[in-house]
Order: sequence, then structure tokens, then C-alpha cells
Amino acid sequence: MYGWDVYLSGEIHTDWRERIEAGADEAGLDITFSAPVTDHEASDDCGVAILGQEDKPFWKDHKGAKLNAIRTRTLIEQADVVVVRFGDKYKQWNAAFDAGYAAALGKPLIVLHPQEHTHALKEVDAAALAVAETPEQVVEILRYVIAGELPGRARAAAE
Amino acid sequence: MYGWDVYLSGEIHTDWRERIEAGADEAGLDITFSAPVTDHEASDDCGVAILGQEDKPFWKDHKGAKLNAIRTRTLIEQADVVVVRFGDKYKQWNAAFDAGYAAALGKPLIVLHPQEHTHALKEVDAAALAVAETPEQVVEILRYVIAGELPGRARAAAE
Amino acid sequence: MYGWDVYLSGEIHTDWRERIEAGADEAGLDITFSAPVTDHEASDDCGVAILGQEDKPFWKDHKGAKLNAIRTRTLIEQADVVVVRFGDKYKQWNAAFDAGYAAALGKPLIVLHPQEHTHALKEVDAAALAVAETPEQVVEILRYVIAGELPGRARAAAE
Amino acid sequence: MYGWDVYLSGEIHTDWRERIEAGADEAGLDITFSAPVTDHEASDDCGVAILGQEDKPFWKDHKGAKLNAIRTRTLIEQADVVVVRFGDKYKQWNAAFDAGYAAALGKPLIVLHPQEHTHALKEVDAAALAVAETPEQVVEILRYVIAGELPGRARAAAE
Amino acid sequence: MYGWDVYLSGEIHTDWRERIEAGADEAGLDITFSAPVTDHEASDDCGVAILGQEDKPFWKDHKGAKLNAIRTRTLIEQADVVVVRFGDKYKQWNAAFDAGYAAALGKPLIVLHPQEHTHALKEVDAAALAVAETPEQVVEILRYVIAGELPGRARAAAE
Amino acid sequence: MYGWDVYLSGEIHTDWRERIEAGADEAGLDITFSAPVTDHEASDDCGVAILGQEDKPFWKDHKGAKLNAIRTRTLIEQADVVVVRFGDKYKQWNAAFDAGYAAALGKPLIVLHPQEHTHALKEVDAAALAVAETPEQVVEILRYVIAGELPGRARAAAE
Amino acid sequence: MYGWDVYLSGEIHTDWRERIEAGADEAGLDITFSAPVTDHEASDDCGVAILGQEDKPFWKDHKGAKLNAIRTRTLIEQADVVVVRFGDKYKQWNAAFDAGYAAALGKPLIVLHPQEHTHALKEVDAAALAVAETPEQVVEILRYVIAGELPGRARAAAE
Amino acid sequence: MYGWDVYLSGEIHTDWRERIEAGADEAGLDITFSAPVTDHEASDDCGVAILGQEDKPFWKDHKGAKLNAIRTRTLIEQADVVVVRFGDKYKQWNAAFDAGYAAALGKPLIVLHPQEHTHALKEVDAAALAVAETPEQVVEILRYVIAGELPGRARAAAE
Repeated sequence: MYGWDVYLSGEIHTDWRERIEAGADEAGLDITFSAPVTDHEASDDCGVAILGQEDKPFWKDHKGAKLNAIRTRTLIEQADVVVVRFGDKYKQWNAAFDAGYAAALGKPLIVLHPQEHTHALKEVDAAALAVAETPEQVVEILRYVIAGELPGRARAAAE
Repeated sequence: MYGWDVYLSGEIHTDWRERIEAGADEAGLDITFSAPVTDHEASDDCGVAILGQEDKPFWKDHKGAKLNAIRTRTLIEQADVVVVRFGDKYKQWNAAFDAGYAAALGKPLIVLHPQEHTHALKEVDAAALAVAETPEQVVEILRYVIAGELPGRARAAAE
Repeated sequence: MYGWDVYLSGEIHTDWRERIEAGADEAGLDITFSAPVTDHEASDDCGVAILGQEDKPFWKDHKGAKLNAIRTRTLIEQADVVVVRFGDKYKQWNAAFDAGYAAALGKPLIVLHPQEHTHALKEVDAAALAVAETPEQVVEILRYVIAGELPGRARAAAE
Repeated sequence: MYGWDVYLSGEIHTDWRERIEAGADEAGLDITFSAPVTDHEASDDCGVAILGQEDKPFWKDHKGAKLNAIRTRTLIEQADVVVVRFGDKYKQWNAAFDAGYAAALGKPLIVLHPQEHTHALKEVDAAALAVAETPEQVVEILRYVIAGELPGRARAAAE
Repeated sequence: MYGWDVYLSGEIHTDWRERIEAGADEAGLDITFSAPVTDHEASDDCGVAILGQEDKPFWKDHKGAKLNAIRTRTLIEQADVVVVRFGDKYKQWNAAFDAGYAAALGKPLIVLHPQEHTHALKEVDAAALAVAETPEQVVEILRYVIAGELPGRARAAAE
Repeated sequence: MYGWDVYLSGEIHTDWRERIEAGADEAGLDITFSAPVTDHEASDDCGVAILGQEDKPFWKDHKGAKLNAIRTRTLIEQADVVVVRFGDKYKQWNAAFDAGYAAALGKPLIVLHPQEHTHALKEVDAAALAVAETPEQVVEILRYVIAGELPGRARAAAE
Repeated sequence: MYGWDVYLSGEIHTDWRERIEAGADEAGLDITFSAPVTDHEASDDCGVAILGQEDKPFWKDHKGAKLNAIRTRTLIEQADVVVVRFGDKYKQWNAAFDAGYAAALGKPLIVLHPQEHTHALKEVDAAALAVAETPEQVVEILRYVIAGELPGRARAAAE
Repeated sequence: MYGWDVYLSGEIHTDWRERIEAGADEAGLDITFSAPVTDHEASDDCGVAILGQEDKPFWKDHKGAKLNAIRTRTLIEQADVVVVRFGDKYKQWNAAFDAGYAAALGKPLIVLHPQEHTHALKEVDAAALAVAETPEQVVEILRYVIAGELPGRARAAAE
């Protein structure tokens, strides 16, 4: 079995990425995780910090968002699996954008969100191969998909 | 010049589609517009209405969203240009999903939203070839792109 | 709205294709239906009838199946939507093959089969955007997807 | 010569995978084999075991089949060669689905089945580059294709 | 049924194209045939006739072959089916090149050649969905594939 | 023979497009020509004229160039053949950009430029299927490619 | 984080490549840089030096440019990010061609040029995800994109 | 610089492959060469030797050619550069087929043949980025393309 590349898109204000990475590590899975830059301030400022100030907020955002796109598109295209997390707050349109982008590329999509978003996210969920509510479920999915192991069972498949 | 196919994605509670279609018609542009099913209730109920009731809201949404996807993905893939509108209300994750989907397919993208969403939509705007605030601007863009005409000028280009 | 191309794959011993075509016609939908050659004997014999007899059944089948593939692959690739029907009898591996072929091409897939096949067809159903049990449901799906109309409701959407 | 990736799809109730892997190993071939999760029960239960119980068998199957699809599609897309085995029993529609999926992606396809299935599998065989009856023949094919060696001959080709 | 595009590649010294076109016409098939420029002298001279003389035969050939490629590649890519004819004489490497080009694009390929070329053309035949010996067989294939009709049988399939 | 789509990219200060279109018309060729907006001022101003003024020249250019890209990319992707003209003046980087864009899409490319640019355009010419010096040569190329006719010869090929 | 491949296209008369490579090295970034052959004379002469003299300058250039294309297209297609530099002198149409080629392949594009070229390069800049004026800015972009670090800030993101 | 994959297609009766491999080795180039099975007898017999005898020569050839296709298509698709050699004898249609296949995939193509075949191979040469007459020229091309070195010059480019 070769190593899998998993991209973790979306919400950046809780520790869901760390929990998935720790769980995968504990399960001994050979996964390389990648993600957007998760430092909110850096992500907002990168365009003007590197390429020069802008008077209008629109162009500041534009320059920054494009720099971030160099990273995110490259990593999504390289990923075997894309996980998109929607949290409790904010518009999170970039998360839904990433989900659409990954879906159009044919990437297997796992969506992670609290149950209360079910109706609002129904189009995103409809494009996914799994809809989870906790990071631990995502770890279990990755463990099953990569190693063939289910919770509470012995290793199901050598590979 | 051949006829253009333009898909109008997103918000379904105002008359922005009608305003674009009427403006394009008035400008004499040869455009075939398409859109998702814009009857909100039909769009929500279609899955269970046709394929049978579900106890859980998740599966009701799932069946419906997948039927809608037959339409939306087919029309987006067929479109020459995709316009995505974000309104004042609701999560509108399906609009952002469509934008990501269209971007990954390499479709020219026009985003239409009020200025107050600039920061929250910066990743979507960064993938667009135009960001407009009014349906009338979208008409002007289509008129220029298809017919080479600018507001307040005589016809600029034969095509 | 442009005309849709819908390919009807699978079982050839009942009148499900006729029922879908009649229903779509009655609903006034602009659909061009296509299908494999549904004359079982012709489909089996075409290879040797045109290109010369074979001693071994394998090569007779091989020559015939390849001629049929000229038709089926061309029409599947041209289709906007692929409907695959599994009936009560026979192995029907060609139907499942077509479903896989269409799925890999990213074609919206509608699967039509009796409930008793649910478990055996779970991988095929998982790749579909709709799973129906009757030809009439397929007509309703096409009517909703193309015309925005639901059973028992007035026309829901202009398109 | 680089290492080859070979995906072994289909029947999970006999030891055909082990025989191919052992034969390839004995022949000194540099092949990484992959496969679906071959623990039947785990494969059936994975969806509800990880993501929560379902009342309807359809949704239990649906959730499980989609998790399995994360694995199978990723591995098929990564494979250089796809081998699909049809056994004596069961519907095996997932095997035919995988064959169609691989064919549409342009993957070289080897089909492995008993002679009695020749007629029923003619469309699948017609898409294949080899049709074998025993796992040992598959090993010989891989040995020839990768190392240029034929049974009963000295090494035929350096590579 | 929509009209089919069939490209007729290869040998230009016999009337095989006319026989196929006449046969298809007689059978009432809706086919648009295309072909390379079949005037041998024009095909050889076109480069220097339009773009200026060359001293070296290599560059004369090069300029001409590239002009012809504008036509042949465009028409092959547009074709639903590609027929490649190998005759009795000449190297005919351009025919084999077209066959490889069409195969890599996934176009259904019909090869037409006398039996004596079977061994020399085995790689080309292996990529084809039909290998015929006479133009009349090609007409029968097209009639079956498009109209579902076999020789000596009533119309087999509506389409 | 179906109608061809030909995109005419590049220099906008001489009448080369008109000469090609007139020549093709005179030759009775069924070609739909397309082009960028050739009104220089409109092309420069379109972004700010429709979407609002900018203080910085960079953003004025940026908004305009993106609107133009909606047109040019759509038409290049739709074209069967792309002609790129380099004139005597200006940087003309957009022409070279279009040539690279068309080449990567696999579009047959005809480059039209005065001999003095041969060395500077060698990479562009190397990607082309024809390099012409006059619009009349482009007409002759199109006449030969589409109708099989050479200057000073009777019609060479039916098609 | 895996290693990134970055292609450095364009101007070959200043040390901008060395400055980017040194800066990336200093920042500890795992990047494999590639570039065209930057020895101007070798790049001009390679065709005739290897494949034989030509009388006409056009064919000397043609043979050389095609050899260079073997290298440049392979490396651009392999790159994760393409940087294109426009300097003060020369036509630099090959740089613009590379930019168009990379854009059509969907490669993230960084353009590097002095401010005075802003208007002439507006179409190229419009296709880019970043427009820089100094090699040091390109280093900062790569550092941010790959390592999540901004100038004057501590490391922003683990990856 | 990463290692290059070069596929050597075509003639199998002279030592041209060995001369290229030895030359590349001497030049210190990091190239992985691949090729079809070059044992003529094994290549002819492989199908029946592994999968069982056939009465008709056509099917013997067919089975063998398909096994060879598993190898050749996989290696061509994996190659960065494809070299196709035409020798003095035989039809060599498989070489021309490989050239067409590689061209349609967009692979850089180097054709190697004696001058006397120039006219007969003009369509193949027109699709190539280099046409050489000796294996040593192919080595020089690879050395220049990969290492930037020309004969009789010091190393021209670091890479």
C-alpha cells in the first residue's frame, strides 16, 4: 500500500485537523496531510505583505486570496481524498468552493459538519462519499479505507 | 457569432435572473440562459415526491439534492459562462459549491454580490473573471463580451 | 432549453424503454433517447453475420460484442444522462459494465431496478444520482430535471 | 523498469488474489498489488459501523458502498493494470462495474473467469486486453508484460 | 438518432471510399463522411504551392504534411468512428499513424485490409473494434451500429 | 463537410482579418470567424467602464483584461483552427500568450508574421502547423484544408 | 509536505533565477527548480549542431526551437508552479507563449516584470495568481505558499 | 533535475537501443529507458503460449498483440519522451501506430530513420519534435534536452 495524500479544507478555528492527524498517527496510517495556511491573519494579509499595500479592501483581499489559491489548488489536485469541514460560525464560502472544486476534479470527498447544517449543506453532502459529524469518524473512515480496519474488529484486510 | 450558453447559479429569492434575461434580450444578444429549478419548495421536495418518503431529514435532503445535481451539473458543464449570485440571506453554500465546480472545469466565472460580502467571498472572487454588484453590470459584461459593445459607445466590434 | 440526450442501458426483455419514451413524449419533454440494439438475436449474431463465422463461441461473442461496443460507447459518451435498468433475470453484467463506464466519464446516472436487488447493486447505486423502481419514476425524474415540474404541482420553473 | 501497480477487483471468496501475489513474488516481479477490502462482513457493515445505524437496508448499503468507493476508485485510478475476477456465485455486479470504470479510464484490463461465463461476460471480455481462466495465467501475463519472460523460455527481454 | 461522423483514413488509390459512401447512402444512413485530401499530387505539393518552394525534399514534405495535419487531426477528433484502410501497396505509415492517433483518443476504430496483412497489422487490429476485408462489410457494420439492421434480417432496432 | 470555426488572434491595427474573411468568402468556404474585440479603446476601457473606476492603472488593466479573457478563451476553446498574427509594432505579448494557450489545448495553429520576426518568434513558429507571411496565404491554407483546393488547380478533393 | 516543482521561464540575461534559487535555499524550502537551457548560444544552435546545418535561417531556428520544446514542455507539464519573467529588452515572445501554455494547463502562474510593462502584459497578468516586481517577492510568495511563513512574522502554519 | 523516462519504440533487429542506452550512460544522463519486448519470437507467441492455442492465425496474432499492448501502452503513457525507430525492412506499422498514439497523447516525439524514408514518413515526421538519422544523434538530443550540453561545447546549463 502506498501513502495517501489527504487535504483538510475549511474551518480554521478549532482543533479538528490536529485530532484527525493524531488519530491517523495513532492508527499507524501512512497519510500525508495537507491544508490551507491556517493562520487567519497571515492568510488575510499575505497579498499586501508581500506584493504591496492596497487602498481598497477588495484588492487587498484579491491579492491575498490568489496567493492562497496557489497553495490550495495545488494541494487539492495532488490529494487522493479531500475532507471539508464546516464549523458553527462564519460564511465559510471558501469551504464550499473547495468542495465544488474537488467534486469537479472527481476527488473522493468527505464532508464534516454538525447535524444542524444538514439542510443548508445538502448539495455539498450530495457530492460527498461520506458525511461525518466528528473528526474521530473521519479517522475511522480513513482507517477503514486505507487499512481495511473497523472499530471493534480485528484487522479486516491486509493490503 | 454563435449563440452563448450562460448558467445563472445561486440566490433564488429576488428577480436578478429576470433582470439579466430581460437586459440581454433588449440588447439583442443571442444567449440561452439556464438555471437550477428556482421553485424553492419543489427543489426541496423533489426527491421524496418522486422516489418515496424518508423518515430522516438527511435522506430527504440527500435524494432531493442528487436530483437537482442531475440538472445543475449538466447545465454547468454545457455553459460557456457561469454567473453565480450571492444574496443577503442564507448560507448559500450551494452557490459557492457551484462556483468551485465551475472554476475547476475552467468555465469563465462572473460573481454577483453586494459589496458587504467582499471579504467573505474573496476566494470565490479570486477565481472569477468579473465581480459585479448589479444584474445590469452582468448584462453589460455579456454585451461587451459577446457583441463588443460598451455603454455609451457605438458598436465596437463586428464579430 | 436545449434538447437532452438520454441513453437507456440494460435489460431488453420488457417494455421499460417504451414506457419511458411514451411518458417523456406525453410530458412534452425534448429528449432524444438512444439505446443498444435491443434485438437479442441480432446483438448476439452481428459479429459473425457481417465479418464471417467462427468455430469457437468465444470469438463469435468477441466479434459481436465489439461491434455492439461501437454503438454503445459512442452513445454513452454523447449522452447527458444514462439510465441503467436491471431486470429480474440473467447476469446482466453488461448493464453493470455500462454503469461503471458512465460513472467514470462523470455522466449523471439513474439506476432502475426492483427492490430485491438493493444489496447486490449497492456499489452501482452508490454511484448513481437516483435509484428508481419504476419507469414512471424515471419519467418523473426527467420531467423534474428538464422542465422543473413535480407530480401534482403546476410547472415549477421556467428554464 | 519501475514498479507496476496492479488492482485485483472482484470475487472475494476464493484464494485467487493470494495465488497471483505468490506467483508474482516467486517470479521476482516488482508489483504493488491492491484490492478492495476483502472482509465481506466489514465491507457490508462499514458505513453504519462508523457513521451510525440506518433503519432502511438501502441506506445502510448506500453508506457502506460509498465508503468502499473511496478506496476502490482511488486504487483503480492509481493502477497500471486492473484484473477483474468473476467467480461461480453471486451477482458480482460490482466486479462488472469496476471493469466498466477501468475501461472508461483507459486502464489495461485483464478479466479472469471460468469458461462457462463466456457468453454472459462478452461485453466485459471485449473491453479487455486479456481473458484468462486461472490465476496462474494472470501471473504469466504479468511476467511477460513486465519482464518479457514466457513459460518454458529463458528471459526474453531486458527492460 | 443523430447523424454520425465517420472519418475514412488511409489508402487513396482505389474506390473504397466511394463504395462505402454509396452503400451507406443506399442504406439510408445519416452519416457525414470525411477524409484526407485524396488528390495525391495536391497532398504532396500543398506546402510549397502555398508557402513557397524549398530546396530540400525534407522541408517540402514537412510543410505539406503539416498542412494536411490541420485537416486530418481536426476531422479525426470530430469523428464518432474512424475507418482505416490499408491497401496492397506502399508503406502507408500515415494510415497506421492515424490508427494510433485515433486509438489514443478513444475513437472506435474499424480497420479494413486484405487478409495477407493480418500478421503485419496485428497491433493495429488489436486496437480496433472491427477488422473488415471489404468496403461492403464496413457498410454492414455502420448499418448495424447505427440502424440496428443485419444483412438478411428485418430492421432489428428502432433507435 | 461541416462548417469550420477559425479564431483570428493578435494584431488589431491593419486589415488582415478583413482580407482573410473576404478571401474565404470569395472562395466559398463555410467558416465562422471569431476574434477578440478589435476596438483598441474599448478593449482597454471595458473593465472600468462597466465595473467602476480604479485609481491604479494596474487594476484598470486587470479588470479589463479579465473581461476580454471571457471572450477570448471561450472562442479559442471553441475554434477548430487558431490563426495568430504578429505585426510590426508593439509588444504583442497577448498574441504570443494566445498562441501558447491554443498550443496547450492542441488546437492547430497558423502563425502569420513578416519574415523579420522569424528568429524572435521561433518558439511560436515551432508550435505551429503553418507559418505564413500574408493573409492571402492563410486563405489558401484554409481553402486547401477545408476544400482540398490548391491555387492554380481544379478542385482536388470532394469531402 | 512534499517537495514542489517550480519552473522558471523567460528572460535569460540577468541573475533572477539564481536569486530565487538562493532565496528559496536560504528559506529552507523543498523546491526543485527547472528552467529552459539558459545558454543563449547553445539554445540558438542546438538544432543544427546536432541534426545538421540548414541554409535558411528559418529552418535553423525551427530545428532548434523544437529541440528546446522537448525540454520546456516536459518541465512545464511537470511543474506545480510556473514563474515567467519578462525583462527590459527583446521581444520575449517565448516567455508569453510559455505563460499561455501554462495557463491553458491550469498551472498556477506567477509573473515577474518591471512596472513599466504593466499595460503591455495585462492579458498575461490577468491569467496569473501573482504579479511580482522582484525575485525576492517571488521567494516570499513561495515561502508563504509552501511553508505558510510571512516576512516579519513567526512561522504561520505547520503543514 | 529529476530522472527522465524515455520509451524506445519500433525496429527490433539492430542494436540501436543498446547504442542509445550506452551513449546516455556514458553522458551520465539520469534516464530510465523502456521498450516493447524485443524478442521477436516471444512477442509473436506470447498470446497462445499463455492463454492457449488458436486455429486461426488471426486470433493467435490478436491474443499476442493485446498482451503486448498492456506493456506498450502503459510504458508510452508513462514516458516523458518517445523515440520511434524505422529500419530498412518490414512494414513496421506498429512503429507508426505507436508514433500516432504518442502524438495524440501530446508526448514529445523523436523519429529515427534513414533518409530514404523521408517522403513515406512525412506525416510521422511532421508530428515529431526531432527527426534523427543515427542513434548517436538521439543521444545528443537527450543530452542537450536533459543536461543542456552540446557536442564540442562545455556544459551549457545547470538544471
